[in-house]
Amino acid sequence: MKTDLQIAQECTMEPITAIAAKAGIPEEYVECYGKYKAKINDKYYDQIKDNPNAKLILVTAVNPTPAGEGKTTVTIGLTQALQKMGKNALTCLREPSLGPCMGVKGGAAGGGYAQVVPMEDINLHFTGDLHAITTANNLLASMVDNHIQQGNELNIDPRKVTWKRVVDLNDRQLRHVISGLGGKVNGVPREDSFQITVASEIMAIFCLANDLHNLKEMLGKIIVGYTYDDKPVTAKDVGADGAMTVLLKDALQPNLVQTLEHTPAIIHGGPFANIAHGCNSVRATKFALKMADYVVTEAGFGADLGAEKFFDIKCRKAGIKPDAVVLVATVRALKYNGGVPKAELSNENLDALAKGFVNLEKHIENIQKYGVPVVVTLNHFVADTDAEVAYVKERCEKMGATFAVAKVWADGGEGGKALAEKVLETLETKENNFHVLYEDSLTIEEKINKVCKEIYGAGHVNFSAPAKKTLAQIDELGFSHFPVCIAKTQYSLSDDPKVLGRPEGFEVTVKEIRISAGAGFIVALLGDVMTMPGLPKKPAALNIDIDADGNIVGLF
Amino acid sequence: MKTDLQIAQECTMEPITAIAAKAGIPEEYVECYGKYKAKINDKYYDQIKDNPNAKLILVTAVNPTPAGEGKTTVTIGLTQALQKMGKNALTCLREPSLGPCMGVKGGAAGGGYAQVVPMEDINLHFTGDLHAITTANNLLASMVDNHIQQGNELNIDPRKVTWKRVVDLNDRQLRHVISGLGGKVNGVPREDSFQITVASEIMAIFCLANDLHNLKEMLGKIIVGYTYDDKPVTAKDVGADGAMTVLLKDALQPNLVQTLEHTPAIIHGGPFANIAHGCNSVRATKFALKMADYVVTEAGFGADLGAEKFFDIKCRKAGIKPDAVVLVATVRALKYNGGVPKAELSNENLDALAKGFVNLEKHIENIQKYGVPVVVTLNHFVADTDAEVAYVKERCEKMGATFAVAKVWADGGEGGKALAEKVLETLETKENNFHVLYEDSLTIEEKINKVCKEIYGAGHVNFSAPAKKTLAQIDELGFSHFPVCIAKTQYSLSDDPKVLGRPEGFEVTVKEIRISAGAGFIVALLGDVMTMPGLPKKPAALNIDIDADGNIVGLF
Repeated sequence: MKTDLQIAQECTMEPITAIAAKAGIPEEYVECYGKYKAKINDKYYDQIKDNPNAKLILVTAVNPTPAGEGKTTVTIGLTQALQKMGKNALTCLREPSLGPCMGVKGGAAGGGYAQVVPMEDINLHFTGDLHAITTANNLLASMVDNHIQQGNELNIDPRKVTWKRVVDLNDRQLRHVISGLGGKVNGVPREDSFQITVASEIMAIFCLANDLHNLKEMLGKIIVGYTYDDKPVTAKDVGADGAMTVLLKDALQPNLVQTLEHTPAIIHGGPFANIAHGCNSVRATKFALKMADYVVTEAGFGADLGAEKFFDIKCRKAGIKPDAVVLVATVRALKYNGGVPKAELSNENLDALAKGFVNLEKHIENIQKYGVPVVVTLNHFVADTDAEVAYVKERCEKMGATFAVAKVWADGGEGGKALAEKVLETLETKENNFHVLYEDSLTIEEKINKVCKEIYGAGHVNFSAPAKKTLAQIDELGFSHFPVCIAKTQYSLSDDPKVLGRPEGFEVTVKEIRISAGAGFIVALLGDVMTMPGLPKKPAALNIDIDADGNIVGLF
Repeated sequence: MKTDLQIAQECTMEPITAIAAKAGIPEEYVECYGKYKAKINDKYYDQIKDNPNAKLILVTAVNPTPAGEGKTTVTIGLTQALQKMGKNALTCLREPSLGPCMGVKGGAAGGGYAQVVPMEDINLHFTGDLHAITTANNLLASMVDNHIQQGNELNIDPRKVTWKRVVDLNDRQLRHVISGLGGKVNGVPREDSFQITVASEIMAIFCLANDLHNLKEMLGKIIVGYTYDDKPVTAKDVGADGAMTVLLKDALQPNLVQTLEHTPAIIHGGPFANIAHGCNSVRATKFALKMADYVVTEAGFGADLGAEKFFDIKCRKAGIKPDAVVLVATVRALKYNGGVPKAELSNENLDALAKGFVNLEKHIENIQKYGVPVVVTLNHFVADTDAEVAYVKERCEKMGATFAVAKVWADGGEGGKALAEKVLETLETKENNFHVLYEDSLTIEEKINKVCKEIYGAGHVNFSAPAKKTLAQIDELGFSHFPVCIAKTQYSLSDDPKVLGRPEGFEVTVKEIRISAGAGFIVALLGDVMTMPGLPKKPAALNIDIDADGNIVGLF
C-alpha cells in the first residue's frame, strides 16, 4: 500500500497560478511562494468584499479514538467531490505545526486520495506563518524582560510575568526553566517557561483578527504580566504592538494550495483546540466565503471542543454563520466507544456499535442545539459491514440527521459524491436557525456552566479557589462579556479521558482560569493542559531524510 | 533628507521574474516568493556548472569606527556602476538577522541610492532562511535532550552538552538559563544557554556547504556534547542529520532580489564574522560565478577578520579565488584612527589623516600578502576636502594599490563609475597570484600564530591553560588540518578595541578554543565574544509600526 507521502508525490500538481485563476483571483493579487504555494494579497479582499457569502460547511467529529476518524481527510474529500459535481468549492484548513511532524505522527494534510499538496511544504515551513508568530511572540518576551532590565518604568513584578517564549517544536526540556542568570548584565533571574508556537495567544489572535489593524489592536491588549501592585501590563504598554504587527503583516495573508484533484485550498492559522479555539483564521474564512459558492472547513478535536468553539468563539466574533455541519464518525470509533479493544475493531459487532453510538448521538444533539442542520458521515474502512453501516444510518435518520458514507480516503472526490449530494440536499431543504449557545451578557461562571452542562453533559461544575479568584479579577478588569474557551481532554465528553460513550451527570472542576485579553476570551481549564509536548523515544525526525536525488523521504 | 526606507519605498521595482530573466535564469528555475523575491532552484546549477567563472571581487574595509564605512553600500553601488557600464554584474551579500533590526540599528541592506530591495522584506523574514536555520538548530537540541531523557544510550553527560538553542532576536534573558526543571517527566536539569541564530554553527555550515548532500554530511559531524568518558557525540549519532537537512532543503537555494537600479542581487546566508567566517554562502557565490561576468561580494567587519576568513576559510574550502579586492575606507574613519573625536570629523585635518592612514596601510599590506590586486576606495562624505582625498590617493598609489572615490550613497551606480573603471582596469592589467596564508599541514597553534602575527601585527601569542588542553584534544580527534577562525574585536587590529591605528608587536592571548567540527574550522577566542546580544534601553522595535494604509514605517 502506498504511503500518503508517495500518493502526494505522485500527484502532478497544477501551477498555483492556475489554481488561483480557477479561484478567480487576478494575477496581481497572487503572491507566489514557489510554484505550488501562494499567499493571496490582502488588498484582494477589497475587490471581493461585496460578493455574496458562500455556504459554509463545518466538518467536525465524534471524540477522537485511537481508531482514527479522518476529519481532515473528509473535509478535503468533500471539497473534491463538490468540485467533481461542477460546484465552485473551496476548503479552509488549519496549518500544521512542526512539533508533531518531527515528533509522533508525521504530517497533517489529509490522507489517501484526499490530501492537500505540496504536503511536504505544508508540513514543514510552508509560507513561514508559524515562524512569524514565533518571532512576534519572542520579540514581545524579549521586550518585556528588557523593560524590566532597563529601569522597569512600568513597575513589572518579574515574578508575575505571564508571557512565555515559544518554539515550534516538541521540547520538554524547556517546560520549566530559570532564565536571566549570570549576573546583573544578563537579565533578571526568574522562573520561566516555553510553549509550542501553536499554543501562543498570538496564534489565537492571528486566527481571530479581521484585518491588519484589528490584529494590531488585539496584539496590543495581550496581558504580559502584572505590576507589583497587581495591575495588568499589556503588549502595548511595553511598545511591542507595532513591531509585532509588522512581523505578522505578510503572514496574515491567507495561503493558497490545492487538493490532489486541484481544488483550491486555503490553509491558514492553526491554534490549539483546548486553550484556544482550534480553527483556521477568520481572515482565511472571510476570503473563502467571498471567493466560492461552497466553503468546507474543519474545527479541532471532537465536536464538544471544536464545533462548540467554532460556533461560540469564531462565529460570534467574526459575525459569520455555518449553513450545515458534517459530523464524521467511523464504525471503528463507535465500536471502540462501545468497549471493543483496538485489535478487534475489524470484526463486525452490532452490540458494541449500538452501545458506542451514544457518543455520536450526543454530538448530533449538541449541534442541533445550535440550530444548524447536521449530516453524519461514516468515513469508510474496508472492514465495515453493510449491517453496521445500516445500523448507524437508521439511528442518525431517526434523529433528524442526514446520513452518507464517505469513501474519500480510497477514492478521493469520487468517493465523496454520496456525501456531497446529501450536503447539497441539506443546504437546499433543511432550515438553518443558527444561534450561539449563550449571550455575551451572561457571567463567565454562567457561560462555563452552560457549556459543561448542555454540551458535555455534566451535572455539576466546581470552581477551585484560584479559579474563583480569577473570576473576581475578570469582573474587575471588565472582561466578563468575553466568551469562554474550555480546555479539557479531547478523548471524552467528560474531563476524564477514560470515560467513553456518553457520560451524564458527572462533576467537573475548573482548576484554573486564564485571561486571553488579546484574543478576547477566557480560558477555563478542566484539567492539566500540556502546552509544550515532548518527543517520544523514537521521534519521527529519525526517519526523515533526503534520498540520493535530494527528495524528501520518511515524512509519513 | 530622505531615509533609506523612504528611498527604498520610492523605487519602482521590476518583477523578480524580469530580474531573473536579466540574469539568464529560465523561468522553470525561478521560485518566486512574492513579486520581488525568488529562490533559484537548486537544479539550475547543473545547467550552468560548466560556464566559465566570473571575475570575483571582494569588498572589505578598514577596521570599523563609529564614523561608519559603508562597505555594503559600496558593494551594491559598484555592482550598479558595472551594470551602468554595460557589464553583466551581480552582487552577493549576506542576509541580515532580525536581532539587530529590532535592536539597535534598523536594516542592513545598503544605504542611500545603493540599496537592495525590497528592503523591508530582506530585513524582516525574507524567504525564511534564518527561520529554517533556527528550527534545524533547535530540533537538534531537542533531540539531544530527548536522547538523554529516554535512556541515554549514547551515555551523554548532561554537564557536557555543548549544543545551544537559538532565537533570531536580541534576548539577554536567555544567555544563562537552567533548563529541564520540574521533575523527572520534564527533562534533565542542566545549565544551558541560548545564542542568536546567526551564531549557530549551522549558519556557518549552511554558508560553507557545496550542495545538499555536503550539507547533510557537515551537519552530521557537528559535536553536540561529550560522553561521561569524554568521547564526542555528533548530530549524526543522535540521528538528527537527515531531518535537519530536510528542514534546510529549500533554504539552501540562493535568494534573488534587485538593487535600486535593478541589478540582480543574490542575498544568502549570514554567519557571524568572529566565531564564524562572516561571508554569504558558498552555494550563492558558486551560482553567481556561473551566472555573471563580474561578481561583487563582501565579507564581515574589517579586512583583518572578514577578508582573512574569506581567503583562508571560504576560498580554501570552496576552491574559489578572488580576482581583486576593493578596500573601503572613509576620510572620517582615517581621521578617527588618527585621534579625532567623532564630533570633529567634518573638519579638514591632514595631520590626523596622516596619522590614521596607518590603519589602511596595514590592511593594504595584508591583502597584498595574499597576492591579490587591491583597489582602495574612499566612500565619499560631503565634508571630505580635495586635499584629504588627494593625500589618501597618493599614499595608496605609492603602495601599488589603485585608488578611486565612490559616491554611490548619493548617486548610486553613476557615483560608482570611477571605482568601477579602476576595478576593471585592475582586473585587466594587474597580476593575480592569490594564495591562502597558510597550508592545512601546519598545526593549529602555528596557524593561529601566523594570522595573529602576519595579519594583526602581534608580537607574541599566549595560549591559556584551557586553550592548550583543547589543542591537545584537537590533535587527538584528528582535526589539526582545519583552518582557524579567530574571534577578536573588530574595532582594532589588536585584541583591544581601544587601540586604533596600526598597533605592532603587541601580545594577544588565546583564552579559549572551540571545535566547529561540522563547519570544519577551529575557533580561537582572543576575548569574550557575545553570541547573544541584548536590546538597548530604547529598542528600534519601539518605532516600527504600520501606517493607516498598512505600510511599514520606522524600519530605519
